[in-house]
Amino acid sequence: MDRVLLSHGSGGEETHRLIKSLFIKYFSNEELNKMEDSAILKSPTEIAFTTDSFVVSPIFFKGGDIGKLSVAGTVNDLAVMGAKPLYMSCSFIIEEGLSLLDLERIVVSMALEAEKSGVKIVTGDTKVVPNGFGDKVYITTSGIGKVVYRGLSAFNLEEGDCIIVSGTVGDHGACIFSQREGIDLFTELSSDCASIWKMVEPLFESGVRIKAMRDPTRGGLAGVLNDWAESSGVEIEVNIEDIPVRKEVNGICEFLGFEPYYLPNEGMVVIAVEEKDTERTLEILKGTDLGKESKLIGRVLKKAKGRVVLRSPYGARVVIEKPSGELLPRIC
Amino acid sequence: MDRVLLSHGSGGEETHRLIKSLFIKYFSNEELNKMEDSAILKSPTEIAFTTDSFVVSPIFFKGGDIGKLSVAGTVNDLAVMGAKPLYMSCSFIIEEGLSLLDLERIVVSMALEAEKSGVKIVTGDTKVVPNGFGDKVYITTSGIGKVVYRGLSAFNLEEGDCIIVSGTVGDHGACIFSQREGIDLFTELSSDCASIWKMVEPLFESGVRIKAMRDPTRGGLAGVLNDWAESSGVEIEVNIEDIPVRKEVNGICEFLGFEPYYLPNEGMVVIAVEEKDTERTLEILKGTDLGKESKLIGRVLKKAKGRVVLRSPYGARVVIEKPSGELLPRIC
Repeated sequence: MDRVLLSHGSGGEETHRLIKSLFIKYFSNEELNKMEDSAILKSPTEIAFTTDSFVVSPIFFKGGDIGKLSVAGTVNDLAVMGAKPLYMSCSFIIEEGLSLLDLERIVVSMALEAEKSGVKIVTGDTKVVPNGFGDKVYITTSGIGKVVYRGLSAFNLEEGDCIIVSGTVGDHGACIFSQREGIDLFTELSSDCASIWKMVEPLFESGVRIKAMRDPTRGGLAGVLNDWAESSGVEIEVNIEDIPVRKEVNGICEFLGFEPYYLPNEGMVVIAVEEKDTERTLEILKGTDLGKESKLIGRVLKKAKGRVVLRSPYGARVVIEKPSGELLPRIC
Repeated sequence: MDRVLLSHGSGGEETHRLIKSLFIKYFSNEELNKMEDSAILKSPTEIAFTTDSFVVSPIFFKGGDIGKLSVAGTVNDLAVMGAKPLYMSCSFIIEEGLSLLDLERIVVSMALEAEKSGVKIVTGDTKVVPNGFGDKVYITTSGIGKVVYRGLSAFNLEEGDCIIVSGTVGDHGACIFSQREGIDLFTELSSDCASIWKMVEPLFESGVRIKAMRDPTRGGLAGVLNDWAESSGVEIEVNIEDIPVRKEVNGICEFLGFEPYYLPNEGMVVIAVEEKDTERTLEILKGTDLGKESKLIGRVLKKAKGRVVLRSPYGARVVIEKPSGELLPRIC
C-alpha cells in the first residue's frame, strides 16, 4: 500500500487509517486528535481569518514544496494583517496514484513549517479524485490568527511615507519557472518560500507605526504597489537600482523578457512606514533571519490618481503597470 | 469574456474584476468587501473550526450543485458540533474554460445557501489551472462557528440511548450515482443537500440533552454508527424496517447491489439521546422544514466491543460492517 487509492478518500476505514498514520502522526495536537467534524478552539475576541488554495507545479521545488508553501502562505496572509497565527485547517485534493512517500514528505514539511510560527493544524479533509488532472495534489489551507496589531491598510499611504522590502524580489516565481521549463542553468536559484511571522512579530512589538504590509505573491511587487497607490490615491516612486534582485533572478528575467517586480515572492513583505520610522524598521528587520536583505526602495510622492513610477539612476521615469494577463499559471 | 481564463487566476487585473463582479457582488458583507488578505472578525471565546473540499461530479445535480453543497457541508460540520455558523471562507480551484455563467450559478447558489443559516462568506481565494482535470471546479470551504451547545461526543453513548435520523437515508449518494451513470429512471430522485442549522438550532435551545450528533456524509449511516459504537464501546441495534428510505433510493440500491445505509446524505443528521428525551426530540425535529421524516431507528444495547447490528422484522440479526473500499468516488 504505497500509493494513494480512491478508497483513501471514501471516508471509510482506509481514510481513517491514512488520517491516523499520517496527519495525526505529524500534526498531533489536542484539538486535532479528537478527530471530530470541527475543532473546538479557544479564541481571542478579535481574529483574522484567511484561506488559500495551492496548485503549484512542480509540487517539490528548490527551497520548498507544496506543503511548506501551503502553511507559509496562510501564515503570511495572517501576519500581514497584524495577526499572530494560531490555528490552521488543511484540506487535500489528491490524485489517485500519488505515492504515499511523497504525501508523507509533504505532510512532514507542513508540520515543520507550522512549528516555526507556533501555529496548530487542528482540522482537515481529504478527497481523492480519479487519476486525470495529472498534478498529484492540491492543498487548501485556512488560518485563524489573533489580531495583535491594528490599523494596517492599503488606504493609509500618505506623501513622504517610505516603502521597504524585506528581501530580494521575484525569487519564488523565477525558481518555479526555471524548474518547470528545465532551465537549470542557475543552480543557486531557490524559492524564498518561508513563514514571515517571526520576522514581522518584533516590528509589531516595537512601537513603530506600520501603515501597510503585504506579501507580494501573485502579481509581485508591482501588484502590491499598484493596489496601495490606487487605494490611497497616491503616486509611489521606486528607484530601480534600490530594488534588491538576485543575479540569478535577473538572469532568468533577461532571458525570458520578464521584469522581476512582476514575479511572486512567498517569504517576503512590502512595508509602508512614515519617514521617521524608516531606519528603525530596517534595523529591526535586519535583526531577523529572513529580513537581512531589507531595503528602502522608494517613497510616496504625492496625492494623485494612483500610479507607480520606476525611476532609473539617470532620472528617467516609467510607469509600472498593474499586472494583467497570465504570466505564470500554477505558481502557488 | 464568457469563460474562465488562466489570467482570472493570476492575481492581477482580471482576478480583481472577477472578484468584484462575482464574489463581492453576491457574498457582499462588511468584512469581505475590504478585500484584504485576511478578514478581521469579532469572535466569541469558544469557536468551532472546520474545513471540507468538494470535488463532486457532476457539479450540477438534482437538488443542488457544488456551490450549495460546499456551503451546506461546512455549515453542517459546525452544526453537529453544537456551533452556530458565523463565518466562512471559500477557495475555488477552477479549470480554465469553465463558463462564467456556470460559475455565477454556483456563486449565487452559495450566497442563497449561506443566507439560510445567517453565515457570512468573509474571505476567499481563486486559482485557475490549465484545462486538464476535466472536472471544471473544486471548492474548499472553511467555517467558524460559535459554540452554543457543549458536550456532543462520539464517546457518550450508553445502554438504553436511542438513535434517531432526521430524514430518509442515502438520498444524496443515490442521486449523484444515478445521474452520473445516466440511470434516469427515477425522476423523483433528488439529493437531500441542505444546511441543517435551522433544523438543529431548536434542539440545542430546547433543554433536551443531545449526546451525539453527526451528518452521515461519506460512509453513510453505517459509518456514523460504527464510529459511535467503537468510540463508546457499545453495541448499537437498528431495526431495518424503521430506517426511512425513499423507494427510488431503494430501487437504485437493488439495481446496483448497494445498501442505502452506506450511501451519503448531505442534509440529514443522526442523533443519540437518552430514552426519556426521544419523544421530545422527534417532536422538535418534526416541527422543522427538514426534519419532517425524523424517525427512531434503534437503540444502544450494551457495553461491548463496538459493533452495529441490523435487526430484521423476523428477528434475524446481521452485523453492519464499517464502510471500506471506494463505493462512489467524487460524491461530495
